[in-house]
Amino acid sequence: MNIGSLNSVIEALRENLQFNKLFISTSRRDHRIDKVIKLCREKNVVFQMVPEEAITRKAGEDHQGVYAELSPIRFYSIEEIVSNRKKGLILILDSITDTGNLGAIIRSAVAADVDGIIISLRNSAPINETVLKTSAGTLVKAKIVQSGNLSQDIKYLKENDFWVVGTVMERDKSIPYYKFDFTVNTAIVMGNEFKGVSPLLQKNSDQLVYIPHSEAIDSLNVSAAAAVLLFEALRQKG
Amino acid sequence: MNIGSLNSVIEALRENLQFNKLFISTSRRDHRIDKVIKLCREKNVVFQMVPEEAITRKAGEDHQGVYAELSPIRFYSIEEIVSNRKKGLILILDSITDTGNLGAIIRSAVAADVDGIIISLRNSAPINETVLKTSAGTLVKAKIVQSGNLSQDIKYLKENDFWVVGTVMERDKSIPYYKFDFTVNTAIVMGNEFKGVSPLLQKNSDQLVYIPHSEAIDSLNVSAAAAVLLFEALRQKG
Repeated sequence: MNIGSLNSVIEALRENLQFNKLFISTSRRDHRIDKVIKLCREKNVVFQMVPEEAITRKAGEDHQGVYAELSPIRFYSIEEIVSNRKKGLILILDSITDTGNLGAIIRSAVAADVDGIIISLRNSAPINETVLKTSAGTLVKAKIVQSGNLSQDIKYLKENDFWVVGTVMERDKSIPYYKFDFTVNTAIVMGNEFKGVSPLLQKNSDQLVYIPHSEAIDSLNVSAAAAVLLFEALRQKG
Repeated sequence: MNIGSLNSVIEALRENLQFNKLFISTSRRDHRIDKVIKLCREKNVVFQMVPEEAITRKAGEDHQGVYAELSPIRFYSIEEIVSNRKKGLILILDSITDTGNLGAIIRSAVAADVDGIIISLRNSAPINETVLKTSAGTLVKAKIVQSGNLSQDIKYLKENDFWVVGTVMERDKSIPYYKFDFTVNTAIVMGNEFKGVSPLLQKNSDQLVYIPHSEAIDSLNVSAAAAVLLFEALRQKG
């Protein structure tokens, strides 16, 4: 979606929509342009100050000194997904770096009817066209929270009656996933393809679980593991 | 693995090893070369008749008129996997066309400790380097049967006390997957990415199952669906 109207840009910023591109004309200054710049700084939205002509080239004559390209994805706040929860099932992705895995996991999560997917901003694959494609388009239906601090979000979830379940490979401090009671409000944490869930998040989890599997392999693919856990949760929730 | 010895080639043909390449010299005829050609015809192995020099270039001076490049994958017969079964769990893949899906499914199947994976020769992705890579190397540990006739193999499985479970999207003639009793010997059939399990194989199945999921999506990815079913079977088998 492309917009050239100041009010639409201000509204999109307030609604936390995702900007792929935001141009602001260097030759206009009024309080609404100032407002846009202030909101961008508040919301950490990247913008570029460009000559008026650059905006006209993109938006045509009929613009108001701004030009924005919006992502079709709307991001959510953790408060929104917690307060609008239905299934009591949230997926937390800690540094999933492969776009193919990220898309596949989002597709399975939407299929499992999760209330939302919390994705770490740091060390995660960008949410781009490849993710949209590998998610088979379900990305636009997913309620995604971009998290700057997963520990803080986990704390918030716990305060709001969620049990936080960290998925690990080690079996010494964990239980088989199907022994966990997923009928409670649950947030499942899946970790990075190589390093797994970070030690800090493991420590912050209420319960660690593992997926019993053949000794012939080292590990399951993270998107297969996510599917197994999500659908076990869905099965138990009935 | 490369071989230049006649006996090794004959042995490899007898053992149903997979030939990536087989050269036979045009300038030698003896009963063992005839034997190789006869076995190739019996086993549907492609070979090329080439000048002696072409073989020398590949195999060095010390060859016996043949040169073969073998795949690291050994294929199995359905009889072998049925008679050596441990878990009583077999996966049947009916025309999976995407190499990425095929590799991912093989990895999950090996993780779920299946006794074997039966793959239709027709309309399936080739078992190549991409499959090896997306299977994270587990392809070499998988017991794969290449099937020219899945209906016939399903009949054989039924005669050998296997229950055949076809995975479908339609809910009218099927039950939720977790209501099936996977503690019996089970063969799970997964179908093509777009068309699903063929009507004939559905008809030949003892039971059709579906994976209940959100109405927000059309279908699960086939490799996610395979992971969900395989690990539910493993969970029940305990």
